[in-house]
Amino acid sequence: MKSFVHKIKPHVQAIRPYELDYVDAAIQLDMNENPIDTPAAIKEAVVKQLQSRPWTRYPELHPHALYQKLSRFVGWPEEGLLIGNGSNEILKMVLTAAIGPDDRVVVVQPSFSVYRQMVQVTGAQFIPVMLTPDLKFDVDAVCRAAKDSDLTIVCTPNNPTGTTLQDEGIRKILAVARGLVIIDEAYHEFSHHTVKGLLPEFPNLIILRTFSKAMAMAGLRIGYLMSEAKLTGEIEKAKLPYNLNFMSIAAAEAGLDHADLLQANVECVIELRDRLISELQAIPGVEVFPTGSNFILFRTPQPGSEIFEALYRRSILIRDVSAQPLLDRCLRVSVGTAEENQTFSQALREVLETAGTSKGGL
Amino acid sequence: MKSFVHKIKPHVQAIRPYELDYVDAAIQLDMNENPIDTPAAIKEAVVKQLQSRPWTRYPELHPHALYQKLSRFVGWPEEGLLIGNGSNEILKMVLTAAIGPDDRVVVVQPSFSVYRQMVQVTGAQFIPVMLTPDLKFDVDAVCRAAKDSDLTIVCTPNNPTGTTLQDEGIRKILAVARGLVIIDEAYHEFSHHTVKGLLPEFPNLIILRTFSKAMAMAGLRIGYLMSEAKLTGEIEKAKLPYNLNFMSIAAAEAGLDHADLLQANVECVIELRDRLISELQAIPGVEVFPTGSNFILFRTPQPGSEIFEALYRRSILIRDVSAQPLLDRCLRVSVGTAEENQTFSQALREVLETAGTSKGGL
Repeated sequence: MKSFVHKIKPHVQAIRPYELDYVDAAIQLDMNENPIDTPAAIKEAVVKQLQSRPWTRYPELHPHALYQKLSRFVGWPEEGLLIGNGSNEILKMVLTAAIGPDDRVVVVQPSFSVYRQMVQVTGAQFIPVMLTPDLKFDVDAVCRAAKDSDLTIVCTPNNPTGTTLQDEGIRKILAVARGLVIIDEAYHEFSHHTVKGLLPEFPNLIILRTFSKAMAMAGLRIGYLMSEAKLTGEIEKAKLPYNLNFMSIAAAEAGLDHADLLQANVECVIELRDRLISELQAIPGVEVFPTGSNFILFRTPQPGSEIFEALYRRSILIRDVSAQPLLDRCLRVSVGTAEENQTFSQALREVLETAGTSKGGL
Repeated sequence: MKSFVHKIKPHVQAIRPYELDYVDAAIQLDMNENPIDTPAAIKEAVVKQLQSRPWTRYPELHPHALYQKLSRFVGWPEEGLLIGNGSNEILKMVLTAAIGPDDRVVVVQPSFSVYRQMVQVTGAQFIPVMLTPDLKFDVDAVCRAAKDSDLTIVCTPNNPTGTTLQDEGIRKILAVARGLVIIDEAYHEFSHHTVKGLLPEFPNLIILRTFSKAMAMAGLRIGYLMSEAKLTGEIEKAKLPYNLNFMSIAAAEAGLDHADLLQANVECVIELRDRLISELQAIPGVEVFPTGSNFILFRTPQPGSEIFEALYRRSILIRDVSAQPLLDRCLRVSVGTAEENQTFSQALREVLETAGTSKGGL
């Protein structure tokens, strides 16, 4: 049969679809998920909602109660908030509303791979600005690029490096940027840092947040944006009506109602992370990078793919990021439960020892 | 504070946001929802899934079981299917993948208002092709416009008119169209008609479907697309990873597992609809248009807004579509339960009688 693929934009045809080749493992530390499941009180509240509402009715066009609760939770007016199916959908709205084929989008690299895919789909110019060789933000380079760009995307703490950019650097970028600046705070709770305080000062600042990490609801796909109210109103025009289903709305509300429980779990994850960092640092040859997130980037003397495969054979799944620029021999591990972390670090130690022995020492 | 609204594309700034001014009423017949709630067996299956799975984990990147079940249900290969958050999200993917600012998009009018908003967001040319004055599809006019357009959108049965286009007309459009052709079959189950049989013959055909109407799950926001596999693969590149949350996936699967229950309810709705049509036809002055859907378009001698307001004062909410071209004095009512339909038609009769008396007869 003849195909109509020629009607697809060339820059979309050129994209390689997002894929994960490895999926099943007894210990899954590859997705930066929260190792502590959503508290039972939240689940019960959601199930109760589900049972008390007809499913055949549309969700609210504008879920008022959820917006009110989120506004109180983050301390930013409702008019400056937008909630979507994961921060991906929110980023998509910003791109749809503001970015066209001739625009310039600056993205710090290496970072979350979906940024690149989503920018490519718009046909805009993707302008990478590298981290420094020791994986720090190169604020001057970002500023130079942001100066005449339409959008700049910075993830802090950065995925997959864990690097955190402090307010001073972010201020510089916001001040010189000609266009909008997205600060993706997907992991901010694990660093006790947020740029929210800069919102009143910088009308080009868009903060992305998610319920998938600290809020322990990756399965629900909830994300949100904070920005100046007028700008938010315009971005909202790229939102599809009824984008959130009623279960997501119920889950997000329940999560906010029980934010104290989630916050307590965040402190546990930070504790687990710091213990895992110590364990990794104690393994000869392992270099651990500083992290403000719920994952850890580390480098070993062996090729990343070998370490990855050896762990995978032991049914431990982490993320091999060694093919990315600057990340030679680097892997990313999400913080798991105490038991998972121990199994992982013990396995890594053994894998490296074996590799070291068979190749004549580290 | 200075605003960065100037960074939003002018054609997005020009859009009026999608809004509903009226929301609360005892009887809500304005959203074309299924009057029969999702069967308990489906709800129970979903709640069971919810309770047996960690919420902190991402949904499957590609929900295999759901795609398999849908493929069996519709009789079309998995590779030619895409599932999203309502057919809106699917339409958005098609637009993102295929339509840019210089393209021409033909849309039959009057129709579902979200098409216009979504096409406007892309910056493409929106080319309306009107129905005939008696609200039938003008196949020749659609063909002339589709000939040199990049995308043509036809909703059949059409919302808000209920008009159904038979295969012969659709074949003509598909055969001459230079670009892609979307047939939105949101309501097809209520007409016992589908163009699915044309898929093997026409590689430019994209069928949109939804779980919001016949499948009784508007609250869940699930829609899907059927098209030629290669084309589907390219459209998929505009899909955001993890677009479906695990609750939607569970609900869609449960819906397909119990499709027989839903199908039985569709026959009830058709029965309710046909009875409501008879009731409306029996009201002096009311003109009822033929419908293949779960809603009915009708015209009265009075201005649509007056009838709408009078019903709303009685806490009955329907849709006033009389401001749309060709639809002078027309209103759209969704088929409700037997009791709701009776209350509505009785109220309409009284409203028209009162209006007739006060204004000197119909």
